[in-house]
Amino acid sequence: MTILIGVAREITPGERRLPVVPDVVKKYLGLGARVILERGAGDPAHYRDDAFTEVTPGAAAEVFAQADIVLCVQPPAPERLAAMKPGSVLLGMLQPWADVERVKLLQERQITAFALELLPRITRSQSMDALSSQAAVAGYECALIAADHSPKFFPMLTYAAGTIRPAKVLVVGAGVAGLQAIATARRIGAMVEAYDVRPETKEQVESLGAKFVDTGVSAAGAGGYARELTDEEKAKQAERLAKAVGQCDALITTAAIPGKRAPRIVTADMIARMKPGAVVVDMAAETGGNVEGTVAGEKTWINDVLVIGPTHIASRMPVHASEMYAKNLFNFISPFIKDGALALDWEDEVMAGCCLTHAGELRHAGVAQALGLQGA
Amino acid sequence: MTILIGVAREITPGERRLPVVPDVVKKYLGLGARVILERGAGDPAHYRDDAFTEVTPGAAAEVFAQADIVLCVQPPAPERLAAMKPGSVLLGMLQPWADVERVKLLQERQITAFALELLPRITRSQSMDALSSQAAVAGYECALIAADHSPKFFPMLTYAAGTIRPAKVLVVGAGVAGLQAIATARRIGAMVEAYDVRPETKEQVESLGAKFVDTGVSAAGAGGYARELTDEEKAKQAERLAKAVGQCDALITTAAIPGKRAPRIVTADMIARMKPGAVVVDMAAETGGNVEGTVAGEKTWINDVLVIGPTHIASRMPVHASEMYAKNLFNFISPFIKDGALALDWEDEVMAGCCLTHAGELRHAGVAQALGLQGA
Repeated sequence: MTILIGVAREITPGERRLPVVPDVVKKYLGLGARVILERGAGDPAHYRDDAFTEVTPGAAAEVFAQADIVLCVQPPAPERLAAMKPGSVLLGMLQPWADVERVKLLQERQITAFALELLPRITRSQSMDALSSQAAVAGYECALIAADHSPKFFPMLTYAAGTIRPAKVLVVGAGVAGLQAIATARRIGAMVEAYDVRPETKEQVESLGAKFVDTGVSAAGAGGYARELTDEEKAKQAERLAKAVGQCDALITTAAIPGKRAPRIVTADMIARMKPGAVVVDMAAETGGNVEGTVAGEKTWINDVLVIGPTHIASRMPVHASEMYAKNLFNFISPFIKDGALALDWEDEVMAGCCLTHAGELRHAGVAQALGLQGA
Repeated sequence: MTILIGVAREITPGERRLPVVPDVVKKYLGLGARVILERGAGDPAHYRDDAFTEVTPGAAAEVFAQADIVLCVQPPAPERLAAMKPGSVLLGMLQPWADVERVKLLQERQITAFALELLPRITRSQSMDALSSQAAVAGYECALIAADHSPKFFPMLTYAAGTIRPAKVLVVGAGVAGLQAIATARRIGAMVEAYDVRPETKEQVESLGAKFVDTGVSAAGAGGYARELTDEEKAKQAERLAKAVGQCDALITTAAIPGKRAPRIVTADMIARMKPGAVVVDMAAETGGNVEGTVAGEKTWINDVLVIGPTHIASRMPVHASEMYAKNLFNFISPFIKDGALALDWEDEVMAGCCLTHAGELRHAGVAQALGLQGA
């Protein structure tokens, strides 16, 4: 029995990505699968229907009712999940910690749900890591947003009447997004400083030509993410950080803790000490913001400082964000599609570790604990 | 008698620059002049009143009524010009071809008006060339606008699941703005092609790492600007250009002819052949646009191509645009300020060539001809 892979158009406002692109569809077909695609699913990302060959066009209701594997970007709405076949697979960024009712529904409907946020971060899984690929997009975009809104040149410029000094950019958080923001701001020509609570990021920061702001506080945590700091550590961190914030022309904050509110790192007092005309881009605006005063989806003037809280950042670059995301999904699921049939392998630590629900059970201990539900 | 230099806040909507910055004010004071500055004149450019030391704060009416030299960015409104002292100097970008009534008023009021657009372009005058300095700002900004709106990465990106190829950017017009756009797009990481009707720009384009689109048509004109082309030349140009437009991911057009409508270079047919998701930034939107379908001040979707017509582009970066502009003005007028007194030298070819009106006469033959007025 040939499996059917389904993709509907995303309906979350502001979401422009899709979980397949034409080249990746060809790869699924090459594995013997069939693909059903909602008409116009790729329009917001500039992938036209006629770019997808050999797919079955369908309505969203058909996608959810018929597909053996549903691929998504954002978690589908409850009525769409309720329409899925028992035993079918759902793969995407399912925000496993966000909505206990959704998790219960996935259990009730006997859906085998893989949430890419749960991906065990080992070498072999890097090619499946959608959080990383989308963070790279977001870091690049935030550096461009900062440059575009700055009242100053980022690069040094020598002209007939003098020389403009390069702008100073401070990047807070040196994860994938922060490193990409550093690299992009450097590329445009700014002098870049970077700050991270994990001192081991210093070498990576410096390898990109940026200077590391050393606050003497370490918050190295599990899985490559930062742990939460104590109040005392936070105060020490804030003191050193405030100085760097006050000297920069543009500040880009990228600190995130998966499944939790973004850490508040930059206070109103620090913003008040910034230069007139300074620009702040808070990449964490959607999860509460790293900066006091950020409003998600808005540009806010705080005195003479512009604080930008962009949302749906990866959707600002939907062609490549979709391409990267589609490849991540393919790399995850393709080992389990053989001759057009699905053969999940529960011995596979990456696949098993990424599983949220299966056969009516909540399979992820961390999510179960966080949501106060019974785990398998 | 110590001369008084006056600066009022610009009132043209969208204009954020000002014609002095604190460091340049100090230089005027160093020449023995006094400076009157309207309160808040620097606010839109993030230069606060307290950053200007030793200036006389005043209202706009006082600036125009009292100053011996009025510095401006945009041409002042008629009632402001009418308030100026006979024999006083007006220096700025006065749009000499735009408004015959303004020229007449300057004559009637016996204002010595220097329009920087008329600057003779010789080696010595480069440090005074405001068109060039502001064009550099605009070229940089337009490359950022293109990158920020593109649904693709500009740079090549290697990530765990593959490689993203760099975007293709086409820059039309390789003047100061175009060259800066090329340099900026290159810096961000795009592959850049550039096109100009003046084949002698090829070397400059290639020196920035971009490829020159050779159409076999030359329109080298006087003063470093392009001449207008014949219909036949335009057709040949369009044919070769259309191919390059169809292949690019982002198109930046920068073609301007001073005092005239911008040349229409990119047709609706060329836009129709662009890739889905392609971005067009038409730097000439304010003077009619290089691109068919551009709307000044708007972002317009034409099929699946985003056409952006930014206005007041230099005002997007008012800190540095003002700094550069202020230095241009200072370099122009400072040789004629000695011990606090104004001593114009009509033997100076740059000064004389830049003069629009003096002692009731229209002094610029080209403007007189264009406006159908009697020249001196």
